[in-house]
Amino acid sequence: MEEINIVKIGGKVIDDENARNEFLARLAKIKKNIVLVHGGGKVANQVLTSMGIEPKMVNGRRITDADTLRVVTMVYTGLINKTITAKLNSLNRCSVGISGVDGVLLDAVKRPVKDIDYGFAGDITPEGVNAQLLIDLVSNGYTPVIATIAADKNAQLLNINADTVASTLAAGLAQKVKTNLFFCFEKKGVLMDANDDNSVIPLLNSENYPKLSAQGIFSDGMIPKLENAFNTINKGVNKVIIGNSNDVEGFFEAEHKGTMICK
Amino acid sequence: MEEINIVKIGGKVIDDENARNEFLARLAKIKKNIVLVHGGGKVANQVLTSMGIEPKMVNGRRITDADTLRVVTMVYTGLINKTITAKLNSLNRCSVGISGVDGVLLDAVKRPVKDIDYGFAGDITPEGVNAQLLIDLVSNGYTPVIATIAADKNAQLLNINADTVASTLAAGLAQKVKTNLFFCFEKKGVLMDANDDNSVIPLLNSENYPKLSAQGIFSDGMIPKLENAFNTINKGVNKVIIGNSNDVEGFFEAEHKGTMICK
Repeated sequence: MEEINIVKIGGKVIDDENARNEFLARLAKIKKNIVLVHGGGKVANQVLTSMGIEPKMVNGRRITDADTLRVVTMVYTGLINKTITAKLNSLNRCSVGISGVDGVLLDAVKRPVKDIDYGFAGDITPEGVNAQLLIDLVSNGYTPVIATIAADKNAQLLNINADTVASTLAAGLAQKVKTNLFFCFEKKGVLMDANDDNSVIPLLNSENYPKLSAQGIFSDGMIPKLENAFNTINKGVNKVIIGNSNDVEGFFEAEHKGTMICK
Repeated sequence: MEEINIVKIGGKVIDDENARNEFLARLAKIKKNIVLVHGGGKVANQVLTSMGIEPKMVNGRRITDADTLRVVTMVYTGLINKTITAKLNSLNRCSVGISGVDGVLLDAVKRPVKDIDYGFAGDITPEGVNAQLLIDLVSNGYTPVIATIAADKNAQLLNINADTVASTLAAGLAQKVKTNLFFCFEKKGVLMDANDDNSVIPLLNSENYPKLSAQGIFSDGMIPKLENAFNTINKGVNKVIIGNSNDVEGFFEAEHKGTMICK
């Protein structure tokens, strides 16, 4: 196998049916090996509310109590995963929707309680990735579609952050096959000037990143994403691109769209 | 591959955590190729009710309107499928939970409206089964766990009767590999006397079935199950066994438990 490309989506591409279908139509046409990782969007909050359960978030991360875990499992691995998979299949890109649970794709542990008790939230490591399952599916012509629920060794289901799943799968796969990691978000890339959508920084590496970082141009929200990207590169991933979901075809070109992060 | 055994569970084995875990512990130890098909049990009704949606059934079959479809997709392919899969994994039987949607395992069509409008209910045929996906998973050492939601060619999700899924998967697989089909239910088998739980008929075939049927010993609920079993045998399935989930190990023995249906 030449390479595998992990594409992570979230936000509007999950929540808005038109945006989602437009994105999936783009993705379906790309003649490359793809693994799609999807977040949960706002659907889980709507279902929680309709069941009289209040969604709880701290620092942008969900507090997953037992009732919430049931709902996010239903929404992520059920409704969203099967909606996306069925759509890709209808676009003639044959896809198999699974989660971290399946084939122990992700061997998770419950996050230890420190300052904040995140409840049934899980942590994962690249060593706990069953990369062979993804390689087998891709080799057989399927596009794996991954929902971000996993389980621990005692069958306790756990909710995992979607960016973390994408990065950890990439690092796990990179030990066996050349792997690229593409994060889709609302902006065209990492911006030099937060007020100018066209000020995309095409390349960040260990040379220019510390200098730009010292100039304070990266927002508080962007810094953990970039640290995560460099961390993934250090674990053997070939390249990371952060860019807009409407530009997804462009991530696969030599003259790439978005911001590329590499060594 | 020597053979594949499809095991269908429903009812108490889905609804009752202790009964489910006991069954899965039995299943996990059986050193045979297994595909597990699970129904939805009563969990979907509980979730529907908690969301203020009234469950609707006619003749024991669900009327699946748009809201109900969302919920059964969440419950069957999400909560139940991942709970079972995680449990089997924790018992060292590495399992992959999928649905009819995934890899177009089941190519479904919406049921035409005749007397009753079942809503988003689907029909399937053995020709519409992607048997190779199951064969690949089983060959790689995984136990596929199947939730009974599928999609049509336009990505419309559809709810499929679990007995129908098990039978159709078996007929589809039988075209490629020797296939047995085991239905788990509450009784020890098909009974000669409905009031005597130990009056199990060990064997039904084309010779004794018409005679026993003419004597009127089969209940209204059992007749469609038996017609379905004979239909499956006529489509190439090696044998069908109907028996109690507590006897599941016994289905795999030469001196089988339950009622065996064959030619």
